[in-house]
Amino acid sequence: MHKNFKNIDHVVFGRGSFAMLGDIIQPRRSDNDGFFLFVVDNYFKGRELEKRIPAEGNDVVRFIDVDPYEPTTDQIDALRDEILHEKGLPAGVVGIGGGSIMDIAKAVSLMFTNEGSSQLYQGLNLVKKAGIYHVGVPTISGTGAEVSMTAVLTGPVKKLGLKCEWTIFNQVILDPELTVTVPRDKWFYTGMDTYIHCVESETGMFNNAFSHAYAEQALKLCRDIYLGDGQTPGNDDKLMVASLMGGLSLTYSEVGVCHALSYGLSKIFGEKHCYANCVIFQHLQDFYPWGVAEFKEMLHKQNVTLPLGLSSKWSDDDITRMAEVAYNLPHMWRHAFGEDWQSRVSVESLKELYKRM
Amino acid sequence: MHKNFKNIDHVVFGRGSFAMLGDIIQPRRSDNDGFFLFVVDNYFKGRELEKRIPAEGNDVVRFIDVDPYEPTTDQIDALRDEILHEKGLPAGVVGIGGGSIMDIAKAVSLMFTNEGSSQLYQGLNLVKKAGIYHVGVPTISGTGAEVSMTAVLTGPVKKLGLKCEWTIFNQVILDPELTVTVPRDKWFYTGMDTYIHCVESETGMFNNAFSHAYAEQALKLCRDIYLGDGQTPGNDDKLMVASLMGGLSLTYSEVGVCHALSYGLSKIFGEKHCYANCVIFQHLQDFYPWGVAEFKEMLHKQNVTLPLGLSSKWSDDDITRMAEVAYNLPHMWRHAFGEDWQSRVSVESLKELYKRM
Repeated sequence: MHKNFKNIDHVVFGRGSFAMLGDIIQPRRSDNDGFFLFVVDNYFKGRELEKRIPAEGNDVVRFIDVDPYEPTTDQIDALRDEILHEKGLPAGVVGIGGGSIMDIAKAVSLMFTNEGSSQLYQGLNLVKKAGIYHVGVPTISGTGAEVSMTAVLTGPVKKLGLKCEWTIFNQVILDPELTVTVPRDKWFYTGMDTYIHCVESETGMFNNAFSHAYAEQALKLCRDIYLGDGQTPGNDDKLMVASLMGGLSLTYSEVGVCHALSYGLSKIFGEKHCYANCVIFQHLQDFYPWGVAEFKEMLHKQNVTLPLGLSSKWSDDDITRMAEVAYNLPHMWRHAFGEDWQSRVSVESLKELYKRM
Repeated sequence: MHKNFKNIDHVVFGRGSFAMLGDIIQPRRSDNDGFFLFVVDNYFKGRELEKRIPAEGNDVVRFIDVDPYEPTTDQIDALRDEILHEKGLPAGVVGIGGGSIMDIAKAVSLMFTNEGSSQLYQGLNLVKKAGIYHVGVPTISGTGAEVSMTAVLTGPVKKLGLKCEWTIFNQVILDPELTVTVPRDKWFYTGMDTYIHCVESETGMFNNAFSHAYAEQALKLCRDIYLGDGQTPGNDDKLMVASLMGGLSLTYSEVGVCHALSYGLSKIFGEKHCYANCVIFQHLQDFYPWGVAEFKEMLHKQNVTLPLGLSSKWSDDDITRMAEVAYNLPHMWRHAFGEDWQSRVSVESLKELYKRM
């Protein structure tokens, strides 16, 4: 009837709060085979943050390059198998990075206790057992992956999340200081993921007073930042809260047209999620008139340019495959257009949208 | 360093969601001695809602009149002892009512597993064990008791909460339909508790980007409601979200001058919390100029009048006792005025504030 949503168990917010990580995981250290797995964005290898990771004794710190592609089912399965084989079952997993690292930490936490390939669990409530204790430490703001019940994975067939209550982090540490080195382009694309979450949440069928209140405030924060001074310490704080609120808005709502098309673009061409969203969103003025107009203002104000004319390099077959991926996300279309969404959306109409790009 | 705050485990929001209560508690029914305790605001006795309480077999439904006084330590101890003696240890407790009922449900949940009088546990982290499973179903919006880590109790010595992680509800059901019968005066006073939480949260030392974002949105919702159409179904939805957000704002912040004075007024004269806040807040323009000005606009717009000249009936001894209660809340004064709050606040200066009333 209404979603009975699971919250993150514990949240800490504040500048410097990363220093609390060691104390926070301490009481868990003796669980299972008594070691922690840290999955860390490769970007931090050799940087200051690497020295601050509270790894001890038997812990494993695994740096992962998330740039080449979005997290895949094969990658999760391999990581799980390797750690189980070499060291056993971790007491917990800590993800330190952006949305991809958050998704890897959430997914591998579940796959340590659920047998077989993660492909088997892509979808809603297919996971059979609670995962191991897992902690999220975002180092870039915007995806909402720190709060969502989904660990989005690209498999051979689908781009779809492991979606269940157990996906949600046991602990999140929100330290805006960690986002200070985010490159400007990623800062823009990733923050715009929150902005687009909120525009899509607000304009669809499932929106209610809860999702509306969260989206309204997250939009307000995005405006403060992207129509204001941009990347400043005060705005880094705001964007971290906006990301959380945008994610919570989706608790009772859903994403829409942009995210569906973006999944197609990521699946076929491997484009990173937040960038793909931005590339697409600029062309969706028919569906999100105020959102797209304001997005263009933000692009202009922050002096960011997005590519145009991409579709001229795509084959009709590529476009068809993207449209098919996007079409097969009925929950997004139902939110965007209602129960009779199939009267508004077809693979053909989606191909036309991709051709705008 | 920063608070690592515990969230409510599960939250459901939506009109009609009260109907989900039976299914939600079902998996817990066989815990402990296999019965649920429902503590329900006496207001609902004989009303429609009474018939909808999903009590079964051995369950206990206890109607409590919260009008005569705020929840006391004696009341909690007696309820706990009586239930343990008559029926044993409940599987869980469900509170259905306003802030007082929320506090009773939270406090009795803890006292079922912690020995001795609840007086022993008034303060921060004095509770020794987790309580039993507890569910909050607010039927009036504004106190934030549904989300806070405090169960405020009046004892022989102190008005102070049982404050710890275990106080937080395992489950909250936010069904705005339940608030439709709230009398207009209580609707105003209780909603203003949220408004005052946010004004105090925003203007003190502990405010950060997290508490600010929540307060800013809760204030916006209060303005929509109290400077707008007042008590409407759409606004009932908004006020329920505002109450939650106002409570979450306090996670990283604190209440201030009004709440400290209000505790004194409640302790000495037994005035209900939300009403006491309103009676006091109108006189605090020195501390909260924009907040008090807007509050007066809301009073005017909603055609509510508050008593003046109360202090003429109070003895100097009464006023001294109230000022002493208020003075002994250093966490509130520290938030309002900083570490050197004692240079700004004395029992004498607080007596002068009470004399304004």
